[in-house]
Amino acid sequence: MTLPADAHGVYVIAPTPFHPDGRVDDASIDRMTDFFVAAGVTGVTVLGQLGEAPKMTHEESVAIVRRVTARVRVPVVVGVSAPGFAAMRALTQDAMAAGAAAVMIAPPSTLRTDDTIAGYYRQASEAIGADVPFVIQDYPLTFSVQMAPAVIRRIVQENPACAMLKHEDWPGLDKISQLRAWESDGSMRHLPILTGNNALFLDFEMERGADGANTGYCFPDMLVDVVRLSRDGRRDDAHDLFDAHLPLIRYEQQPGPGLAVRKYVLMRRGIIASDTLRRPGAALAPVARAEVDYLLERLARTDPRARVGDPARPAV
Amino acid sequence: MTLPADAHGVYVIAPTPFHPDGRVDDASIDRMTDFFVAAGVTGVTVLGQLGEAPKMTHEESVAIVRRVTARVRVPVVVGVSAPGFAAMRALTQDAMAAGAAAVMIAPPSTLRTDDTIAGYYRQASEAIGADVPFVIQDYPLTFSVQMAPAVIRRIVQENPACAMLKHEDWPGLDKISQLRAWESDGSMRHLPILTGNNALFLDFEMERGADGANTGYCFPDMLVDVVRLSRDGRRDDAHDLFDAHLPLIRYEQQPGPGLAVRKYVLMRRGIIASDTLRRPGAALAPVARAEVDYLLERLARTDPRARVGDPARPAV
Amino acid sequence: MTLPADAHGVYVIAPTPFHPDGRVDDASIDRMTDFFVAAGVTGVTVLGQLGEAPKMTHEESVAIVRRVTARVRVPVVVGVSAPGFAAMRALTQDAMAAGAAAVMIAPPSTLRTDDTIAGYYRQASEAIGADVPFVIQDYPLTFSVQMAPAVIRRIVQENPACAMLKHEDWPGLDKISQLRAWESDGSMRHLPILTGNNALFLDFEMERGADGANTGYCFPDMLVDVVRLSRDGRRDDAHDLFDAHLPLIRYEQQPGPGLAVRKYVLMRRGIIASDTLRRPGAALAPVARAEVDYLLERLARTDPRARVGDPARPAV
Amino acid sequence: MTLPADAHGVYVIAPTPFHPDGRVDDASIDRMTDFFVAAGVTGVTVLGQLGEAPKMTHEESVAIVRRVTARVRVPVVVGVSAPGFAAMRALTQDAMAAGAAAVMIAPPSTLRTDDTIAGYYRQASEAIGADVPFVIQDYPLTFSVQMAPAVIRRIVQENPACAMLKHEDWPGLDKISQLRAWESDGSMRHLPILTGNNALFLDFEMERGADGANTGYCFPDMLVDVVRLSRDGRRDDAHDLFDAHLPLIRYEQQPGPGLAVRKYVLMRRGIIASDTLRRPGAALAPVARAEVDYLLERLARTDPRARVGDPARPAV
Repeated sequence: MTLPADAHGVYVIAPTPFHPDGRVDDASIDRMTDFFVAAGVTGVTVLGQLGEAPKMTHEESVAIVRRVTARVRVPVVVGVSAPGFAAMRALTQDAMAAGAAAVMIAPPSTLRTDDTIAGYYRQASEAIGADVPFVIQDYPLTFSVQMAPAVIRRIVQENPACAMLKHEDWPGLDKISQLRAWESDGSMRHLPILTGNNALFLDFEMERGADGANTGYCFPDMLVDVVRLSRDGRRDDAHDLFDAHLPLIRYEQQPGPGLAVRKYVLMRRGIIASDTLRRPGAALAPVARAEVDYLLERLARTDPRARVGDPARPAV
Repeated sequence: MTLPADAHGVYVIAPTPFHPDGRVDDASIDRMTDFFVAAGVTGVTVLGQLGEAPKMTHEESVAIVRRVTARVRVPVVVGVSAPGFAAMRALTQDAMAAGAAAVMIAPPSTLRTDDTIAGYYRQASEAIGADVPFVIQDYPLTFSVQMAPAVIRRIVQENPACAMLKHEDWPGLDKISQLRAWESDGSMRHLPILTGNNALFLDFEMERGADGANTGYCFPDMLVDVVRLSRDGRRDDAHDLFDAHLPLIRYEQQPGPGLAVRKYVLMRRGIIASDTLRRPGAALAPVARAEVDYLLERLARTDPRARVGDPARPAV
Repeated sequence: MTLPADAHGVYVIAPTPFHPDGRVDDASIDRMTDFFVAAGVTGVTVLGQLGEAPKMTHEESVAIVRRVTARVRVPVVVGVSAPGFAAMRALTQDAMAAGAAAVMIAPPSTLRTDDTIAGYYRQASEAIGADVPFVIQDYPLTFSVQMAPAVIRRIVQENPACAMLKHEDWPGLDKISQLRAWESDGSMRHLPILTGNNALFLDFEMERGADGANTGYCFPDMLVDVVRLSRDGRRDDAHDLFDAHLPLIRYEQQPGPGLAVRKYVLMRRGIIASDTLRRPGAALAPVARAEVDYLLERLARTDPRARVGDPARPAV
Repeated sequence: MTLPADAHGVYVIAPTPFHPDGRVDDASIDRMTDFFVAAGVTGVTVLGQLGEAPKMTHEESVAIVRRVTARVRVPVVVGVSAPGFAAMRALTQDAMAAGAAAVMIAPPSTLRTDDTIAGYYRQASEAIGADVPFVIQDYPLTFSVQMAPAVIRRIVQENPACAMLKHEDWPGLDKISQLRAWESDGSMRHLPILTGNNALFLDFEMERGADGANTGYCFPDMLVDVVRLSRDGRRDDAHDLFDAHLPLIRYEQQPGPGLAVRKYVLMRRGIIASDTLRRPGAALAPVARAEVDYLLERLARTDPRARVGDPARPAV
């Protein structure tokens, strides 16, 4: 599978399921992957920040890519961000050989100035191979690197292999509008923009011109619906569904415990067997679990997918 | 008015209304202040970050304090954060002389290490006068200073004048739980905790032990209701009301355009005459105004306070 | 006095002398100013970061400008950096009215992206008055803002009032070379570049094209000599003198205690009466004083200006 | 070789020599290692930040450890800092198996608060094995993490495997004094402190209580001499030698081009064959090379080791 030039829909950010003892849980990967496909995702991104990539050895990482690409017929994007190009190149080569469609690269947190950021992406593209499609991850909240729209345009223009923007700047609505305006006036080629940030602004991002979502909220099936409703012009319906999920979206978007929330709900939904995070990574405190349970109960009043049964007896 | 030892409820963060030409709009200050009191706030905080404090001269700042204290019977807290103690002391003295109940101090963005942060608050308290009650503003997202719970406890213990915590850490729920646990086991004296961050987590913050809100969301009357419902144990009702506002809360909480959103809605509600921000401060783009209008329309289906009439004919 | 278009030589950064009780010491200001003039400085910068500007009230600041401008026949530059434009404008107006030749503006620490930095200087110039000459302070180590050479060029081109660069990037030699190359190829108008960073690289900065020094090392008379020797093409002599001072330059350049070192030596030299820093600002520990004394003794072997007598009996 | 409890002297930070095409240059590693031993170093640290560790694959890293340990009879410390514990553990296991005496761990740049930093080292020690001696790298300028003396004491007390401090805080003299004071009053066990920061303050660090140097200045033989002279109480001699090198030390300490300077001089000295840096990593510009040549010429007047011959004909 290759990354289409008009990529759109939901490229779900896949977490990495672990057994309670920390080993990778292959059966859960398979079940989760099947669930994603059934939910209608158009792509899968593995080994991102919330895929706990830095906690995995190179061999484990490659095995996950292989497992997922073998199971799906949609493009698989692989996070390869690394402090140095040697590790980035090594993972890229093995990931592409294993059937990945593209890689995703976040900037190192020390980058400042437009020139430095643009220079980094030129060097990275050269390092991994100028023919390997790459996705820019623009997430200043986590990576401390702020990319002005003009920098993104520069990266697009300087790198034919730049194939998508994972947009998660905050605030970021005007950035989408600006990039689309440049496409309209011909000063930038078309770039698929899929948005992250746990979908906190997906409702309006779609209306500003985003092509879809590239995030891992615990109800990717809802993301698929919102993207579809929005693309179909059913604005109120899109917002109604989105708003029903917003209390949980917001709760899951918290930088620290967010991933634990996501895994907990995926476990409650029967999609993965355990909500274990690899160390360092705190389990959800009982009070937080109870808060999530309450949010699920409330959500279930309008979205039956949130009926996850008794927390004492998880679905799996 | 003094700051009560058991401060609670809503200490609303007041924006500073300007005329379109940038002059302070006294009539709007009066109308806004009256609105706050009618809404049931228990305190007013002026000249915070979102009160555009750094854009005001010392004389303007003092005049605002004088105007507001003269009009209300609730405690008025004044933001006095400054890069140096000379300006902080000068504004504190004039503010207290003008009837303020306390001042609010955020840490300079360069502070690192627990010792340095604790040392800063000791020196600040000494600089402004050890008898002047002060509020800690704990807002790492804006100020880049992270205060562990242990640092807050240390500041409380070392400074008798420490009178309240404006809590806006993110994620921050566990911080409230930890501080309350220390109060329970006797290792920290009671400290009123009012939460900020545009109320994005007010629903659960109340349940974790917060005493109320200290923020400036454009419906402070809703904040008053949510705090009351939560304190009365009406959990579902509190969440129902909160959730109806969450799409707008989230939109207003954006770091850059948030204040413009807030002022725009306050103008639409007829509370201030103009949504002007002093420079540097961008007006809301037309597309963003339309998004806010849409959010208000949707909100008005469940909360009649959001019926603000035709945007082409503002209420004032 | 106005700032000449070919500013060069040494614009000394003046510390603010205090009495031991923290009051501004006018007699020491006068003596220090006279010393600067006698040493051959071509300009004086007051109220910079190391002039303890943030610790001064507006009135104190203006009084210092008035005192210094009244006493010298060289241009006086005034630091007016502030978190908001109101304070910046107020101090600029009073400083220019008091005879200042220009103001110096550092960027707020939150600025990122080339567009944002350039935008800030446009707005600042408009705020203080487009006719007021301003100096860019480019000091990433302290202000956390990195300006690529292209940003400096943009500021120069967009603001006719941009009159000088206080260069203290680190590393920064190539930045000087780049800016001078742009002047040579006509893509940038001439901009006086005077270097700071406590002169740690003054020897090579001069050779790369700097016009002089804009810093406050405790031997400004040595800076004057090094700049002159370098401009006269006496390379070895310039380095010999510079190298003799380098151990002390390096010691004084430490971010925290550096200013205390500077004031201590100026006091030992009989130029100011007390080495007091306003709070918060630690005095030099006895062990550090002894280290500085030792460095002075060693320096005195080659530069008689360092013979400051018995530390137990200061010169004043 | 194990790391002695009273480690002292010079643990040289070894660069990684490359061929001009970017391959690891084994012959240069051997020659460089022999040179270090002949110079009298008491330890060697490989794969630190300036060993270009992030640019190396795991296999290359392990091969370097193996090569160096096989050649020396002094302890070899291996930098294993990584964004995740999986890579850190993997490299630690292979490095220790290859004969390393200890590993060095720098904190991830996102760490704030004393609790978080202390927690990180506890988890890291557990992840690599509580029996593996580790060195704290305290380098806030590069890693953006500030460790108060109290945090270092805490790490020492909580982790029996904490075996050394690579001290490169800036300013940092008082930190050494504080830690030694705690050792004196019995509130902290003895911890070897070796200093980095390219030796910019080695002269006074030794006098404050450091046990030696842990840095990679291009004249490690000079570091050995300064440490010895200082430990022998020959203060003036230590400073005389140190001061002669200070102009070059300062030049090499520049964050960006520093490593290129170091490699260039080592090449000029005939110790490594090429000054190639792996990408991304700029070669030294011709003007910078000429500046270094000039500094070497000047140094050679007092230290014959700096007589490196004609730059057009390098020694190797």
